[in-house]
Amino acid sequence: MVLEAILAHLDSLGRQHLDELLDWLRIPSISAQSARAADQLRAADWAVTYLREAGLHAELRDTAGYPVIVGGYDAGPDAPTVLLYGHYDVQPPEPLELWDSPPFIDDWGGEPPAKAADAGAADTGAADAGTAEPVRDGAVFARGASDDKGQIFCHFAALRGWLKHHGRLPVTVKLLIEGEEEIGSPSLEAFVTENAEALRADYAVVSDSSMYTPEIPALTTGLRGLAYFQLDIEGAARDLHSGSHGGGVANPANVLAAFLATLHNPDGSINLPGIYDDVVAATDDERAAFAALGFDDEIYRAEVDAPALAGEAGYTTLERRWTRPSLDINGLWGGYAGEGAKTVLPARAGAKFSLRLVPHQDPDRVAQAVRRAAEERLPSSVRWELTAHHGARPVLTPTDSPGVRAALRALAQGFDREAVFIREGGTIPVVEVMQRVLGTTPLLMGFGLPEDRAHAPNERFGLANLNGGIRASAALWAGLARA
Amino acid sequence: MVLEAILAHLDSLGRQHLDELLDWLRIPSISAQSARAADQLRAADWAVTYLREAGLHAELRDTAGYPVIVGGYDAGPDAPTVLLYGHYDVQPPEPLELWDSPPFIDDWGGEPPAKAADAGAADTGAADAGTAEPVRDGAVFARGASDDKGQIFCHFAALRGWLKHHGRLPVTVKLLIEGEEEIGSPSLEAFVTENAEALRADYAVVSDSSMYTPEIPALTTGLRGLAYFQLDIEGAARDLHSGSHGGGVANPANVLAAFLATLHNPDGSINLPGIYDDVVAATDDERAAFAALGFDDEIYRAEVDAPALAGEAGYTTLERRWTRPSLDINGLWGGYAGEGAKTVLPARAGAKFSLRLVPHQDPDRVAQAVRRAAEERLPSSVRWELTAHHGARPVLTPTDSPGVRAALRALAQGFDREAVFIREGGTIPVVEVMQRVLGTTPLLMGFGLPEDRAHAPNERFGLANLNGGIRASAALWAGLARA
Repeated sequence: MVLEAILAHLDSLGRQHLDELLDWLRIPSISAQSARAADQLRAADWAVTYLREAGLHAELRDTAGYPVIVGGYDAGPDAPTVLLYGHYDVQPPEPLELWDSPPFIDDWGGEPPAKAADAGAADTGAADAGTAEPVRDGAVFARGASDDKGQIFCHFAALRGWLKHHGRLPVTVKLLIEGEEEIGSPSLEAFVTENAEALRADYAVVSDSSMYTPEIPALTTGLRGLAYFQLDIEGAARDLHSGSHGGGVANPANVLAAFLATLHNPDGSINLPGIYDDVVAATDDERAAFAALGFDDEIYRAEVDAPALAGEAGYTTLERRWTRPSLDINGLWGGYAGEGAKTVLPARAGAKFSLRLVPHQDPDRVAQAVRRAAEERLPSSVRWELTAHHGARPVLTPTDSPGVRAALRALAQGFDREAVFIREGGTIPVVEVMQRVLGTTPLLMGFGLPEDRAHAPNERFGLANLNGGIRASAALWAGLARA
Repeated sequence: MVLEAILAHLDSLGRQHLDELLDWLRIPSISAQSARAADQLRAADWAVTYLREAGLHAELRDTAGYPVIVGGYDAGPDAPTVLLYGHYDVQPPEPLELWDSPPFIDDWGGEPPAKAADAGAADTGAADAGTAEPVRDGAVFARGASDDKGQIFCHFAALRGWLKHHGRLPVTVKLLIEGEEEIGSPSLEAFVTENAEALRADYAVVSDSSMYTPEIPALTTGLRGLAYFQLDIEGAARDLHSGSHGGGVANPANVLAAFLATLHNPDGSINLPGIYDDVVAATDDERAAFAALGFDDEIYRAEVDAPALAGEAGYTTLERRWTRPSLDINGLWGGYAGEGAKTVLPARAGAKFSLRLVPHQDPDRVAQAVRRAAEERLPSSVRWELTAHHGARPVLTPTDSPGVRAALRALAQGFDREAVFIREGGTIPVVEVMQRVLGTTPLLMGFGLPEDRAHAPNERFGLANLNGGIRASAALWAGLARA
């Protein structure tokens, strides 16, 4: 079998793959820090060089921000077409003092923290002496190790393995590797829209998320969307003495709390007109599949360290986080928050709150419902302003489509374990953009783990994940060709 | 008539009284600023000297903080006894740049602000040149002019008038002039309790509030009490991503808003168990008297610049502010309050809120009701802590007691206009202390005006208020002797 030979070939290159990934991880490509602009281009160039050497076409295309890597491989008109998305930029590594090894392998991405410098002074004098090895405990520790260089590198290595060992790929691949994911992908939707014809594909493969557990690879078939709001309320035009005026005029903080409280029903569901009209209920099959995952409420409760779990009645914890809309206050302010007691009747109070949306809720319709609720529920004794911050549509992939089944099988083959369908409560706006603008079926194959500490100190990517991800990617190209 | 002769004598000393008050106002006796400790003692000494010169006994008594002025005049065992309360300390004058004349007449109480210094440089070179006169527009402008040096000075001058012109006083007077009112009177309750026997009196005269309007002198017969709380709520032990976890665990900000919303009923009344049990309803006579004041909701609304007034249904605005308990959120915090959108499910949220109490509500019983509500209404999915910050009991003086009637008549005589009974929504803890510890009937004779800008820049005290206050004080001693 072709695939088995390729997998064997890839397995033989384990150390080489790690060394290559370490090279990429050495480049501090931090999109949020303008001083790293040259490193951003170095990281993009590194990928272009690697992909070209692998036998693909690859080039940088300018955007208003950092360039996008495009190119790919043409397998002819009859082959399925796969858009491969990823990003070469990483989060800032700060706070540096919490890293046990340098975030960029042998580079702190700036002044080494006092801890490392001190250790060095007391030991050999080298700046990073006394710190841990970047590869330890079966994982590579670096900023971007899991998010997203390590995961997208799995695909790079698998594509090279196919082309080096087999001479050709069974699918047409189109690249879309951006450098602005960690700052909100400001240039991507315009780029995708302007290049829609060239980027159009049957599938969009995204490896920027997680397996269900270290033992259970997973295909993510749903992402929640987002509708985010800010409500500012003003009563009297200036702060008043709560003794002289309490009971005389509306208190905007009282009004705010009362309004926010109306947004939920006693059973934990959301109390907005028509908010559930567009919600597609999870099927019995899906609910059974989620139940079969054996999610343990107590383990989760202990992990987040909450006294008890809570949410909408009638749904399991996973169902609430994956398949039901939620509404959370993200911020709250008004009056005096300092020490002791101040008897102020504040002039102003405000809140940020947001809904996570599930198919087929539309952020614009939700915004209308929130505005209508504000109009109907806020009293005439206050002035108010409602701002809709930004929205993102939810994503749902039918689990019975052939490509989705092929991706699930590829994960099982790659990690040599049964793979499952999961969803994710968060939002990856670019996935929705590719689905909506290009009409592709998203295949969210997370090779990372929930405990990889993306965006936090000591980010890591397991060597087993690296190896399994490369194998799963190799299996995916074969599987999609047959799907 | 004795009183008429004394009033004529006092009227003849108008310019002298102003000059004497200006002397006292020159001393920056700021209790909140330890650098002003010597000025505090100077201000206390000034009062002792004045009172002794007037013919009263006066001396400083040590406390844990600034000294209290005690002493008085003994009119024999058959005369009624009056405790005269006031304070010689003042609020800090800052922000200095908003004053149109120096807050201490010819002294800025520190570096003159740039505005005044600039004007001086361009003009005569004197530090305060180019600023307004301290006596202008029929008022004296200074820190402490109304709160409280100007008002307590009215009594000093009237007492001296009686003794200089008549040789004796018809009432026994006991002095209680403190130097820590503006920092919360930390030493006073202990001092009053330790000296209860010596301070015991039939009446406690307090002039530290306001007339109803410039045209209408008023005796304040009620003060609201206070019960102040802080509620801190924690859900998960750390901030979580609102996408991945929204709907899975309780959001402490959601819980906080829901709890705070339960504290009011839809009609604006307070929803706490038994909260109205101890409330004494205003009598029909009192409600009629308040209605007769001609309070104009629209003028009040425009003054506080609120879009509409609001509060408990079934009561007028004055009734709500003076005779009904109120509950106000004083502060609110949690999560992200910065610019833009952050999708955080906050670990913690909190609020400060307080109730204004009316007779005979007890702050401790109210605190129990709030705690019971928290216990019954907060879900087990959060941890919480309720802190009772401090409480003060409400004060109510029966309007039909002879002393109260005499005080009302004295105000009418002093200001030559009909005087009315009013209440005040705020809290003056010392009044409740004197009522509770000493068993005195409080007589709250405010000589100031609501627009005197106590605690704010350009504090003022009208010359008509100074004159009327001195006359009303003189009339009070005669009236109480007959009461």
